[in-house]
Amino acid sequence: MDFVVILGLIAASLTTLSYIPQLIKIKRTKSVEDLSLGMFIALTTGFTLWLIYGFLINSLPIIFSNVLAVTLSFLILLLKIKYNKK
Amino acid sequence: MDFVVILGLIAASLTTLSYIPQLIKIKRTKSVEDLSLGMFIALTTGFTLWLIYGFLINSLPIIFSNVLAVTLSFLILLLKIKYNKK
Repeated sequence: MDFVVILGLIAASLTTLSYIPQLIKIKRTKSVEDLSLGMFIALTTGFTLWLIYGFLINSLPIIFSNVLAVTLSFLILLLKIKYNKK
Repeated sequence: MDFVVILGLIAASLTTLSYIPQLIKIKRTKSVEDLSLGMFIALTTGFTLWLIYGFLINSLPIIFSNVLAVTLSFLILLLKIKYNKK
């Protein structure tokens, strides 16, 4: 595989999987006060639109990475709402 | 402009600008305990690689959105390190 393609795949993996340490941290601490609700609403909405875009242009890499990204960011969004102090 | 292109641009804007509410929140509260250091290290590294990828394939949209994304995520990373309790 081309060096440039490998670089792109590493970049995509890092930005997509970045939400996993945050998810683990929330599961452990059950504390979400410092997380921005707006950030995770924007991310979840954005990744959903990326996913629709991926289907419309038939791009498997865009579909694949955004299925994962929207799942992870939506989970964090749900936990933010669940654990947020009233 | 094509509907599909507009959809992609809205998606890119949302995911790129999503870090702004988090940055504003940190500036206001100076509290970063609940943020995952790993998440922002992965994001900053990932966006840097996306940026290099964008230059290598000469894609202005990838370069433009990742210049912004790497700047915002790196700022949050610096504030996370600065305000983190010892």
